Amino acid sequence: MEEKLRFGVFGGGSWGTAIVKMLLENLDSVGWYMRSDSAIRYIKKEGHNPNYLGSVEFEVEQLHLSHDINEIAQSSDVLIFAIPSAFLESELSKLNLSLKDKIVFSAIKGIVPETGLIVGEHFHEHYDIPFENIGVLTGPCHAEEVALERLSYLTIACADAEKAKMVAKHVKSEYIRTKISDDIIGTEYAAMLKNIYAIAAGIAHGLGYGDNFQSVLMSNAIREMKRFIDRVYKMKRNINASAYLGDLLVTGYSTFSRNRMFGNMIGKGYTVKSAMMEMNMVAEGYYATKSAHLLMEKLEKKSKTPIINAVYQILYKEKNPKKVFEKLTERLD
Amino acid sequence: MEEKLRFGVFGGGSWGTAIVKMLLENLDSVGWYMRSDSAIRYIKKEGHNPNYLGSVEFEVEQLHLSHDINEIAQSSDVLIFAIPSAFLESELSKLNLSLKDKIVFSAIKGIVPETGLIVGEHFHEHYDIPFENIGVLTGPCHAEEVALERLSYLTIACADAEKAKMVAKHVKSEYIRTKISDDIIGTEYAAMLKNIYAIAAGIAHGLGYGDNFQSVLMSNAIREMKRFIDRVYKMKRNINASAYLGDLLVTGYSTFSRNRMFGNMIGKGYTVKSAMMEMNMVAEGYYATKSAHLLMEKLEKKSKTPIINAVYQILYKEKNPKKVFEKLTERLD
Repeated sequence: MEEKLRFGVFGGGSWGTAIVKMLLENLDSVGWYMRSDSAIRYIKKEGHNPNYLGSVEFEVEQLHLSHDINEIAQSSDVLIFAIPSAFLESELSKLNLSLKDKIVFSAIKGIVPETGLIVGEHFHEHYDIPFENIGVLTGPCHAEEVALERLSYLTIACADAEKAKMVAKHVKSEYIRTKISDDIIGTEYAAMLKNIYAIAAGIAHGLGYGDNFQSVLMSNAIREMKRFIDRVYKMKRNINASAYLGDLLVTGYSTFSRNRMFGNMIGKGYTVKSAMMEMNMVAEGYYATKSAHLLMEKLEKKSKTPIINAVYQILYKEKNPKKVFEKLTERLD
Repeated sequence: MEEKLRFGVFGGGSWGTAIVKMLLENLDSVGWYMRSDSAIRYIKKEGHNPNYLGSVEFEVEQLHLSHDINEIAQSSDVLIFAIPSAFLESELSKLNLSLKDKIVFSAIKGIVPETGLIVGEHFHEHYDIPFENIGVLTGPCHAEEVALERLSYLTIACADAEKAKMVAKHVKSEYIRTKISDDIIGTEYAAMLKNIYAIAAGIAHGLGYGDNFQSVLMSNAIREMKRFIDRVYKMKRNINASAYLGDLLVTGYSTFSRNRMFGNMIGKGYTVKSAMMEMNMVAEGYYATKSAHLLMEKLEKKSKTPIINAVYQILYKEKNPKKVFEKLTERLD
């Protein structure tokens, strides 16, 4: 039965492109929705994505490409979303069919700004998908290294272990190892929170803090992440597993991370607005910071998350990064 | 009483130099032993160490310099050792006075090769110093960043909390934060083990593994470190505190780490011998690997430390790094 499941990937960015590549190691055909019709025409002609991971060559006849989200949703049993969280809802609003009977996996690291929910919750609450049909596909994984076929480890989380195993089976290959988890809430929050900590690492770097401080910041960040996630959804999990600590490190130590770059500009004195304009995009951690802060405020646990608070004060309250970080350093150990 | 304690630093390397600098933020005078008489003459004339942290300027009249270890040991109440573990015993053998009534802190990350003991145990067993007079001063801390006065956090561990506080008080400053711990065994083993993991990170890099794998390796390394230390000395500790995880990260992610560089050369195909010759020194993790491996073998816990085993097979059994790491990747998750 499994053999007959049809996979559709939603999103034409680097992570979406990487996931299509992984699936095609195991499948003869993959559906692929992207918004840009010109990108689709380019892929059909040249065999690679014009904007992302250009070195990845596709056999065009294996791709069922469309810029009609309904066409790909209709023809897929397993839907993997890799659309930036900020655009997810506007894309989903184009759907004119129900996702109720679909298996929906999120490869999105972030919060849906319109609802303040992590993606799994958003699908559950607003698209009537039962939790056992919702999953998460998470790193630590830079898409660029998938393009290079460098060994990477993915965690596939789903309340229904069979579905996690099924998706894992379809993405694993010579260069992709997979691990199964039942912690969809925790892995999603980890993927979201790490972007906030990457912004913090960037701000610290921009302010002139060095490698010694960076290691202390990451050591505090993983402890803060544990407190946060345990508070939101308590279950037995090892916060040092790859999906949590590994994901934090691959982003927090990456000089290519957009979130870290965004923080770096803030630390160097750019305003939030000018940093966003300069980058020509919004770093996902920007929204995550607000959602995480509001959630901790609601749960009255703000005092337990000093790094998130510091980033929030800087991004949303126009507080001076240098002063906020001086205070923060007293809270770390 | 504390005010009158005299401090002596043993070792003229970068870490010794950084510790002298830290102490002089709080003291009028510090004893400083180093082997090289010419380095001492240079410091007296030029006011900075000719070989390490040349940017750190000293007031020469505040330094009690000597290349006679007995002179500095005699005139000090608190002895801080920052001599590479491979040379510690040959230096200590020059002593003609007892250390029994001294307070001895180790700033050494490694194993004493002659005895296979961590430094604290070595002082306890071979120099009759009671454990309450033995302490550890550990990072995460690159000496180079202390020279630049970049904010760094030290952990000061001693079974006697008062002595830990006393030493902490004497090293802290505008740019040095301190934390007290009673886990001298655990912090010392962490400082030693992280060098093995830095070699592993270097080998992986040399073999062409990327950042995704590096984060998985570090995520597995901290879990392995926890299993190792818990087995050696079980107590309540948070392995994600700066002295454990932070120290692992600052070394494992540093391209300047000698241990990581050594591993990188091995990964690129150098033999152990030629890598050592090329570096003109022995990376401390080299000895640590053997000691850690033998200890786990003795305790029959070898199966719990796959990363240490892999490094051991490569460094001491001349196994092919590529093949050993291919096997290792199957043990990680």
